[in-house]
Amino acid sequence: MKVVFDPRQTAHAPEQYFRRGAFIPHPEQPLRAILLRDALAGAGHEIVTPADHGLDSLYAVHDQGYVDFFRTAWARWVEATGSTNPAVPNYHTTRRDARRPEGVIGQLGYYSTDTACPVTEGTWEAIYWSAQSALDAAERVMAGERMVYGLSRPPGHHASWDASNGFCFFNNAAAAAHHLRRRFGKVAIIDVDTHAGNGTQDIFYERGDVFFASIHVDPTDYVPYYVGYPDETGRGEGAGANLNLTLAPGSGDAEIGAAVDRALEAIRDYGAEALVVSLGFDMAHDDPLSVVRCTAEGFAATATKITRMGLPTVLVQEGGYLGPSLSNNAVVFLNACDAALG
Amino acid sequence: MKVVFDPRQTAHAPEQYFRRGAFIPHPEQPLRAILLRDALAGAGHEIVTPADHGLDSLYAVHDQGYVDFFRTAWARWVEATGSTNPAVPNYHTTRRDARRPEGVIGQLGYYSTDTACPVTEGTWEAIYWSAQSALDAAERVMAGERMVYGLSRPPGHHASWDASNGFCFFNNAAAAAHHLRRRFGKVAIIDVDTHAGNGTQDIFYERGDVFFASIHVDPTDYVPYYVGYPDETGRGEGAGANLNLTLAPGSGDAEIGAAVDRALEAIRDYGAEALVVSLGFDMAHDDPLSVVRCTAEGFAATATKITRMGLPTVLVQEGGYLGPSLSNNAVVFLNACDAALG
Repeated sequence: MKVVFDPRQTAHAPEQYFRRGAFIPHPEQPLRAILLRDALAGAGHEIVTPADHGLDSLYAVHDQGYVDFFRTAWARWVEATGSTNPAVPNYHTTRRDARRPEGVIGQLGYYSTDTACPVTEGTWEAIYWSAQSALDAAERVMAGERMVYGLSRPPGHHASWDASNGFCFFNNAAAAAHHLRRRFGKVAIIDVDTHAGNGTQDIFYERGDVFFASIHVDPTDYVPYYVGYPDETGRGEGAGANLNLTLAPGSGDAEIGAAVDRALEAIRDYGAEALVVSLGFDMAHDDPLSVVRCTAEGFAATATKITRMGLPTVLVQEGGYLGPSLSNNAVVFLNACDAALG
Repeated sequence: MKVVFDPRQTAHAPEQYFRRGAFIPHPEQPLRAILLRDALAGAGHEIVTPADHGLDSLYAVHDQGYVDFFRTAWARWVEATGSTNPAVPNYHTTRRDARRPEGVIGQLGYYSTDTACPVTEGTWEAIYWSAQSALDAAERVMAGERMVYGLSRPPGHHASWDASNGFCFFNNAAAAAHHLRRRFGKVAIIDVDTHAGNGTQDIFYERGDVFFASIHVDPTDYVPYYVGYPDETGRGEGAGANLNLTLAPGSGDAEIGAAVDRALEAIRDYGAEALVVSLGFDMAHDDPLSVVRCTAEGFAATATKITRMGLPTVLVQEGGYLGPSLSNNAVVFLNACDAALG
């Protein structure tokens, strides 16, 4: 399978992450993408670099001011603070009245909801090309390829309409889904990352042309906490087009597989003509952030089921951290897809 | 003048504050209150301890779940994280859909909007008694005293309906204003802290029975950034009952005095029967957080104007940090009030 990746995606490399009152090493490292690329190349998959598809599909799934903010945020931060510390927000808005302020420090908080997305000198370059990898995969599928893998990194599914969250800046999968709409009438996204796709849900919550199904650990006491509950089913034109399937901590291949079956059934019922997969590997039993226990066989089973949907499909990389099985799970997943494609 | 203070208010004493990507010493120290108390006692003002007025007036100005959260937050945090680091949030909600999660880590972020309000073992005790000092001052004014000073600390005016912000947990001035409503038909708050009273505005924005006027540095590039603009004038029953008067950085006594005149004129026009003063000393020219240049004479002039309104008045301490003139400005302010009372 073709794997789309641009080395510029590694330009975002924050070392630390402020969490629970202290700094810890940042788990979302460029090394993740390098390991995945090298393992997939070693397994015979073809690594290709993305063309530049511009910002149109990002502007369609994000507030334009949000997208443009990241282009100059770092330079403005250095000028305003006199510091070259990564730009980490420490102010945020309430859930009620708030306006976008003029200064970069206020804007940084306005456009973010956590401390997991430090902005550094290379952030714009990395997130731009991460999105291009997803868009390029979508373009290739629109041109007739059956399945292409966008090795997006930094990931995207926590990024909402106008806020970074959970290591995510631009919602690569959402942009790919919107991009696919240029050719396909109805598009679905299935999110198999272990964390709820709260950003993707936010972006499409009132849209009926993109169905979103997310399988994830129950957020009542797990990131992203505030969104991802089963009774969130969409609104307005999007009513009925949002499906959250939650897993109890400790769930294994059987529970995950049952949820995948339900999600794919809903996508079939919806009548999707093309599919985007928000592909996290952090359900792995040995992932450093995992509280569920997916095995390599579990990943292969998911890959087979997704492929047998028979839809033009864009795989977009989401989470999955530096645990022992990361690379192997990616190889197993893509190999299972190729095998099911026949 | 009577000064209401309880030593338990010093039980909240976070050492650090995560700001602009790094830890700095926390500016909102218990020493602030001790210095103010001792200077005022030395100047002949009478220090009294508050009675316990309970939670009713706090529940009236805050979400009940928010108030109750702080009672057990520390113990729950220690249990959930295994850490005795101060509880600092690093996740927050978007401005759209969000629900209160069950776990303490998610709730901490749900009930806060910045990193300036670490929760520690002593936080509940301190914020409870800080609020009681303001309520006790209100009770004394309701019982016939003309003017009483609630030496509240931690401060309150950035705390909104359901979120801590800017060193503030319980909105002491808002609770005092609501409390005064038991006796007075129309109450006004004038906020002369150098930062916008965004929390107080949030609480009363749709209420017509409490008029809120705030004088502060233009928030376009200054804390609290998102609220405090002149075109925010109230909504619904509160339409016309919110007044924001912004100062340019560098403003001095003349500009501050003109804004005080405008605020008091609006409060007179409103027909207030009692007054709460959110009394920050951080407009002082030498305050560590100041970008304006109020002198001791400026503070005295404000005190005189406020007193000459002739209204039953509760002074509630807000900001003002460990700069050279802090204690003297408080003495000057209260002495000028006493002098105008005659």
